[in-house]
Amino acid sequence: MGKLLIVGTVAFDAIETPFGKTDKILGGAATFIGLAASQFNVNSAIISIVGDDLPKEYLKLLSDKNIDLTGLEVVKGGKTFYWKGKYHNDLNSRDTLVTELNVLADFNPIVPDNFKDADVVMLGNLHPNIQMSVINQMTVRPKLIVLDTMNFWMDNSLPELLEVIKHIDVLTINDEEARQLTGEYSLVKAAAKIETMGPKYVVIKKGEHGALLFHKSKVFFAPALPLEEVFDPTGAGDTFAGGFAGYLAQTENISFNNLKNAIIQGSNLASFCVEKFGTERMLNLKKEEVNKRLLQFRELSQFDIELQ
Amino acid sequence: MGKLLIVGTVAFDAIETPFGKTDKILGGAATFIGLAASQFNVNSAIISIVGDDLPKEYLKLLSDKNIDLTGLEVVKGGKTFYWKGKYHNDLNSRDTLVTELNVLADFNPIVPDNFKDADVVMLGNLHPNIQMSVINQMTVRPKLIVLDTMNFWMDNSLPELLEVIKHIDVLTINDEEARQLTGEYSLVKAAAKIETMGPKYVVIKKGEHGALLFHKSKVFFAPALPLEEVFDPTGAGDTFAGGFAGYLAQTENISFNNLKNAIIQGSNLASFCVEKFGTERMLNLKKEEVNKRLLQFRELSQFDIELQ
Repeated sequence: MGKLLIVGTVAFDAIETPFGKTDKILGGAATFIGLAASQFNVNSAIISIVGDDLPKEYLKLLSDKNIDLTGLEVVKGGKTFYWKGKYHNDLNSRDTLVTELNVLADFNPIVPDNFKDADVVMLGNLHPNIQMSVINQMTVRPKLIVLDTMNFWMDNSLPELLEVIKHIDVLTINDEEARQLTGEYSLVKAAAKIETMGPKYVVIKKGEHGALLFHKSKVFFAPALPLEEVFDPTGAGDTFAGGFAGYLAQTENISFNNLKNAIIQGSNLASFCVEKFGTERMLNLKKEEVNKRLLQFRELSQFDIELQ
Repeated sequence: MGKLLIVGTVAFDAIETPFGKTDKILGGAATFIGLAASQFNVNSAIISIVGDDLPKEYLKLLSDKNIDLTGLEVVKGGKTFYWKGKYHNDLNSRDTLVTELNVLADFNPIVPDNFKDADVVMLGNLHPNIQMSVINQMTVRPKLIVLDTMNFWMDNSLPELLEVIKHIDVLTINDEEARQLTGEYSLVKAAAKIETMGPKYVVIKKGEHGALLFHKSKVFFAPALPLEEVFDPTGAGDTFAGGFAGYLAQTENISFNNLKNAIIQGSNLASFCVEKFGTERMLNLKKEEVNKRLLQFRELSQFDIELQ
């Protein structure tokens, strides 16, 4: 059972999809990452910051999953990061209606002493300087540092992003962002270029079209499970990353073949996340359901090759 | 070694991509289907129509691959179907600059006697009445009838399309067309609806995002091989269909598991087709290259599932 350190937002989300809308509910990258990772046998901790307007019961939902919240700062009188978004009919694109950074604007992450030797560090999407600060506080080089980011930081903090990328092992990024970061349209070429920037592994997320894992000349593709209904895509990418990192922290094996398995585990968990609003599905997810769907993933992509 | 009957266009294509342009070269759905199927141990025939402006050497390229051209009518003084198109920079979309039906406007397909008992019939994209006429001429119900179509026929000949669809076993269609045909955004729901229209199997092509095979509650996903460079996508869908149908005609096994393999074989051949203009890559494709890339497909999508 390895140690997994997660840094990212714990937030209020308000979501509107073609199927309905929510008031402020629990969201944030670290929340989804932590819930996904809690499906595995790991010792995990979240570093984040919230205001005291965040209901204590939300934090209890996380600590009930055995996630260490020592590094989660609650600012007295502070307001929690708030995101409000509306998805278009195809659920593949969305408009951000509100982004209030609030306490996140002054976030200074502190790694708890007993996680300074974490096996896996999962750096959720945040300012690259915050991600770098977490890496710098580690007293033992983690077996694996995974970083998620987005186009916003490429537009606004590219030098800082390029600096932190030098120090990581796995970059998770979507297809458009991989193209933006490298100027290469071909994802094969984009991944190769990213590998020269630092990461040994590149995971390119393609949403409903699955995910690709690149390492040198090797490539692995994990499909997304075709679903009858996608209800709310919020958190799917973070759930994917959390499943990926959680599985690797549990198995403590960072071979390419095990990274393949980790990608499948992440895809599997993400397929649940989108079935309900926010964290609802992940909070009540049973091991039997997870295992059943893993078998569907095998059916979905395994075949008997026949050479001619 | 099964018999494969192919109906479709043999045509002139003129293609422009970001990487270059061609004058009129050999193209057409039946051409690509036939070349792909010729990679397998099959007895195949093409039914089509051309004008005598089509160089005899083009037809020789096909007959050299042991494709029976008895059913390919050459109209004296007639002009061959001509398509000219220009691909956008991302190669995912294109503008049609010229479409001249020419002799295709009066195409009346005649199935050669010795193919009226074909094991597999591959109906390339054409007017649904032409596709229906071929089915009606079969004296023995084929083991498998595969039909490819496009949005043009949904817009202009929907009743005829729905009629022929009743009589087939496999529909191959792209994701947008599946949505148009059924009014369902979810591909799972779209495929289920199409199965109520006649076909037992539905293959949904997603281009660079791979292909899905549906049958009742089963689903299989074949990735597209991530390529460094896509040079010219023309014919990729037909090559996919030809590999699919050709493999099934060779193996004469239409179980779901073997259809999975057929989808992989089709995806594999399509990955070659896009590497050069038109038919160039397919005409010179070696068995060793095909086998080598099949192994890459295995690496690309096979994993060791671990239940928790």
